[in-house]
Parts: sequence; structure tokens; C-alpha cells
Amino acid sequence: MTHDDIHYMNRAIGLALRAQGKTSPNPLVGCVIVKNKRTIAEGWHKVCGGDHAEVDALKKAGPKAKGAVMYVTLEPCSHCGRTPPCVDAIVRAGIRKVVVAMKDPNPVNNGKSLKILEKKGVDVVCGILEKKSRDMNQPFIKYITTHMPFVVAKTAQTLDGKIATATGDSKWITREAARVSARARRNDFDAILVGVNTVLKDDPGLNAPSKRLKKVVVDSTLKTPLNARIFKGVRPGDVIVATTPRASKTKIVRLQKKGVVVIMTGLKRGQVDLKRLFKELAKKEITSILIEGGARVVSSALKEGLVDRLHIYIAPRIMGDNKALGSFIGWDVRKVKDALKFKIRSVEPIGGDLFVEADIV
Amino acid sequence: MTHDDIHYMNRAIGLALRAQGKTSPNPLVGCVIVKNKRTIAEGWHKVCGGDHAEVDALKKAGPKAKGAVMYVTLEPCSHCGRTPPCVDAIVRAGIRKVVVAMKDPNPVNNGKSLKILEKKGVDVVCGILEKKSRDMNQPFIKYITTHMPFVVAKTAQTLDGKIATATGDSKWITREAARVSARARRNDFDAILVGVNTVLKDDPGLNAPSKRLKKVVVDSTLKTPLNARIFKGVRPGDVIVATTPRASKTKIVRLQKKGVVVIMTGLKRGQVDLKRLFKELAKKEITSILIEGGARVVSSALKEGLVDRLHIYIAPRIMGDNKALGSFIGWDVRKVKDALKFKIRSVEPIGGDLFVEADIV
Repeated sequence: MTHDDIHYMNRAIGLALRAQGKTSPNPLVGCVIVKNKRTIAEGWHKVCGGDHAEVDALKKAGPKAKGAVMYVTLEPCSHCGRTPPCVDAIVRAGIRKVVVAMKDPNPVNNGKSLKILEKKGVDVVCGILEKKSRDMNQPFIKYITTHMPFVVAKTAQTLDGKIATATGDSKWITREAARVSARARRNDFDAILVGVNTVLKDDPGLNAPSKRLKKVVVDSTLKTPLNARIFKGVRPGDVIVATTPRASKTKIVRLQKKGVVVIMTGLKRGQVDLKRLFKELAKKEITSILIEGGARVVSSALKEGLVDRLHIYIAPRIMGDNKALGSFIGWDVRKVKDALKFKIRSVEPIGGDLFVEADIV
Repeated sequence: MTHDDIHYMNRAIGLALRAQGKTSPNPLVGCVIVKNKRTIAEGWHKVCGGDHAEVDALKKAGPKAKGAVMYVTLEPCSHCGRTPPCVDAIVRAGIRKVVVAMKDPNPVNNGKSLKILEKKGVDVVCGILEKKSRDMNQPFIKYITTHMPFVVAKTAQTLDGKIATATGDSKWITREAARVSARARRNDFDAILVGVNTVLKDDPGLNAPSKRLKKVVVDSTLKTPLNARIFKGVRPGDVIVATTPRASKTKIVRLQKKGVVVIMTGLKRGQVDLKRLFKELAKKEITSILIEGGARVVSSALKEGLVDRLHIYIAPRIMGDNKALGSFIGWDVRKVKDALKFKIRSVEPIGGDLFVEADIV
């Protein structure tokens, strides 16, 4: 791995990240074409259905691509998907060498394209900044290999882990800056999910600042009011309500008439079967979900091993009240070693509060 | 404020900090003597009873001090304490100009020395890096102005604010590195304080790695066992047990025979009156206290407004169990705005855990 390899791959990763939250169900991909130590073109995958990063860069490079080196964050595709295979374009352009960060985790490719390129006489290097590239595409990797969405659970809590007082007051635990940041992060996801109690209590809009995302309500008995704010200004199919055979058929029909997608799962301890639900959502090409509460649905998802990451906003406050509502509830833990383990991914002060990202171990 | 002023004062603060935890009940003070843009001597206050920073530096400078500029983090003393007044030494050495970060907060001085220096023809500048200097001497400033110790409450908790399971298991919430760091921080304090339940449950030694500190047990009915580990290898007076008229006189006598100092406070809701206790401890020149638990004594101290700062070690674990023991307990908080407010002072990853310092607002 040369210094140049790292430099150009870092740049390619930076380009890929420009489209964060916009390429689903495709991965983030960035590409840099280099000739005689000079960057002659850059590209990235901007939106699902649009040019792949390699083609974006090749178009900009034009005939200069001949004999050049291509840095790309992910193994190029060799199958016909929404766009023609990139390997053909690469060979056609006369690229001399392809440096990739990682193999395509998609089982239909996974190294095949690299072999094709080698056969066609293109030099191939794989594994430059692989960890960083994998990290960037964690949601895609999980989705494409397990057919389940990448799930982040978000809470806003006090230093002592409380999200509301005993009387139910929760406005606001964190300050303006943290709340704005939390809203902005919604842009990174395909869907946002809440339990029906959150809808009943807070009536949130659940909109992202610069993106139309799917809104999913977990509602075993269909208590979601037809005039809830989540329905405001959405298009048919944007709201998904997950329910169980306990729901009234009339209410199901009413919701469907409103353009709401109703997903029926079997019962799991009398509630919506979250695992089943998440499988259904993945089938709808929802590759990433942000669970925004309440504590019960977050805790159920954690318990069933469906959560990959926590986003915890911590306000420097202390409730000191045993009766206040905790951010995670409903377990029986007898030994410290039985507590759920995470790995801190990052910690960052945001306007007087803290933001902690932690991955499940 | 020139660039030089900042440079030398920063250096003086760095020197002062070398004696952290060692100068009590005196403040941390550092001093740099500069002549023709060159540092000719540096000094700092190393231990109570030893040379003040100014004298330490002047001794090293010798006759070269004549006509030099002195940077010192705190206004020099002009009163006879354990050592002779520094202003006399400064004038005698022929220092041309004295730059101080802050006035002496001690009411017996508080600007007097600066006036004396000016009268004697020494130029005086005050307020260079004052905030940083005040911050460094927060415990001293509180002690000298309020006759109360600076109090830090420490907890080690999960992300969801739990310090033990419902069955009482608490070993270990945080990992080795955080525990080593927590022990090392004991060096910064004059005394460490725990509730008797912590003694009964964990039987901690409560020793600091490189310092003899006072150990204080809050024990309203004197349940502390005479063979507890806190008594091992201590000298008479090192252990202080705070109790109430509810304690048995025989037990008091037994403890006193062991060299234990017994402080009797009035009853406050049937328990040791912590405010009274802290006043007594301040009279014994205990300027800073680290409360290491349990949750009840920490919470009582917080409730009574006796705590200045929190040291929270957060392990990336989740208990998710309402019955698990919270880090702060015993309040009734009806509205979020009634929760105790803090300001994050620092956040730092330590070996996979987080360390958060927060000051009470």
C-alpha cells in the first residue's frame, strides 16, 4: 500500500460520502482516475438508478482514461442491474489498473468482477483502506448479505439514563443543537420507526430535513389516529403501519384507503413481531432504519438482536428519580456480565450535550 | 495581552500543575522569570510549607532577577503564613514587572499585594489567562472563600445509568483502564468519602496510588466493622467516621482507641448532616473531597448542593432493567426542567469506556 494509494482512496471515500443517505438500496461508491500522478477525473454514485461512480468518472475523463489508474471504493459490478456493468466500461476505456478498497459484498459479485478485469489484462489491487470503506457501507453490507436492514436506535437521555420524568414530561431532555443534529441524521436512513405510544403521546411529524423517508409505526392494535401528524404531506406508500391480527379490520381498510401500507405480522408476546417486520421492510428495499422510540420498542428490538448501533444524545442533567422513565427497559439482568455490550464508535459534544455512537458487540 | 504574556503564563500554569494534589490547603502556583525574552528561572509551589513558587524561582534566578519580569499564576502573598511574604522577596530581588493570572482569592490578600508592589515601583499586570488559572485552582478558591471543601462525586455506570444489577452485582461495570484511571484521580484530593453501605458491601481499601489521603465514612449508626480494609496500614487521624447521636457510645470509644477521628453531626432526616460534616472537614484543612459512593450518599450530597463536579465513568453496556440500581436516586422530579443541571467540562474515551466531567450549574 503506497502513500498514493491511501491518498487517492481517501479521496474516493470522501466523494462517496457526498451521497450519504441518497443511494439506497445501492452502496456509497466514490472513484478517482489518476494518470501520471495527476487526478484526471472524479466521480461518485449520486442516486440509485444514476451512473455508478466508475462510469461517472470515466465519462468525465473521456479518452484520457486510457492507460490510467482507477481508484474505486468498491469492486465494480459485472452484472446488469439498473445500469450496464461497470467492468465493460472500464475495459473499454483502457484503464490500466484498478485499485479497490473492498470486494463487492453482494454474493452475486464478490470478487467475480476483479477476476474478469484481470482476465482482460487489467492490473487489480484490492484491500486499500478496506476497513474505512466497509465502515462507510455498513448498512449496505448488512442488507445485501443478510436481507435485513441496518438498524440504529436513538435515544435522548439524561446523564443518569432517563428519557422522561415519572409524570411523562420529556420536553426537552436535550437542547436545540442536539435536536437539530438528531433531525439532520434522519437524512441518512431509508426509514424512521416509532412505537404507537410515541405517536399518541408526542404526535411527531417524523420528517427528515432534506429527504422523503418512509415512516414506520409499530402498532399491534392500530391505535394510530387517522389525523396523526405523520400522515401530513406524505405520498401513498410513505407511511407503513405494522400491526397484528389483534387489529380491527375496519381500521386496516381505513388506513389503506389513506395510502398507508399495512404490514401484518404474527404475534410475538402479543405484540408486532419486529424481526418479521424488518424482513418485510428489507424486501421493500429499506436498507436502514432509525428507531426513535419509545423505550419499549427500542428495548424489544435490542432484545431480539435487531439493533446494530445506538445513537445516544446525553444531556448533562440528572433526574435522580427511580420512578422516571429509563431509556432501555424490560430486561432482567442478574449479573453485570449479562448486560448488553457495545463498543463506543464516537463521542462528540453538541451544543452542551453529548452525542455517543456505539455499536453492538 | 501579548503573545509572550500568554506563552509564559501557560508555562507557569504547566509548572503549577506538576504539584497537583500535593499543595493542599495551599493553591497550585507556578512562576517563570523572564529577562530579555529569555527564561532565566522557573519555580512552582511543591508542597504546603515549602517555598512558594515565586521564592522557588527567585532562588534559582539569583542576582539575575534584577530588572526581570515575573510571571506568576496567582497574586503573590503579602502576609506571613507558613513562609515569609513573597512581595518582600520580589521587591528585594529587583523584579521590574510582575504579571499575574489572577488576584489571590484569599480575602486577607485579594489585591493588596498588587497594590504594595505598585507602591514599591514594580509594574503590575493582572488577568493574563485568568480563566485557566481560576479553573486550575477551583478547589482552593472554593475552600478559601466559602470555608467548604470542593466536592467531586464519582460514579461508574452503564450507558443507561445503572451502577449495579437488581441483585447487587456491580463488579465490574467499567473495565480495567477506567478503574486504574479512577484510582489515579484519588491523588488529586485531600479526602475520599463513602457511605457505610459501600464499606459493608465492597470493603474497599480506599487508598490512593501515590498519596496518603484521609478516608471519611458516613455512618449514622456506626456499622463500620473494626476490621474493615479502610483501617489497614493507616496512621492515627487518617480515617474519619462521621456519625450521629444514633451511634453507640461504646463503638465511638472503640473507634477512637483505634486512632479514628469520630465527627458527630446533628441528625438530618435521621442521617449524618453532610453540610455540617463538610464544614468540619474544611476546618481540618480538607479542601477537596472525592465521594465514591454509594448512590445514596452521592445523591444526598447533590440534593443538599454540596457537590461541585461529577466524574462519571460510562461503560458501553445497557442493563435495560428498571429494577437495577441507578447512579443517582431518591428524588421526585415532575418536570424535565427540574432535573439537576450540569455543564460538560470534558469527555474522554478511556480504554473502551467514557470519562465525563461535568460541573454543577
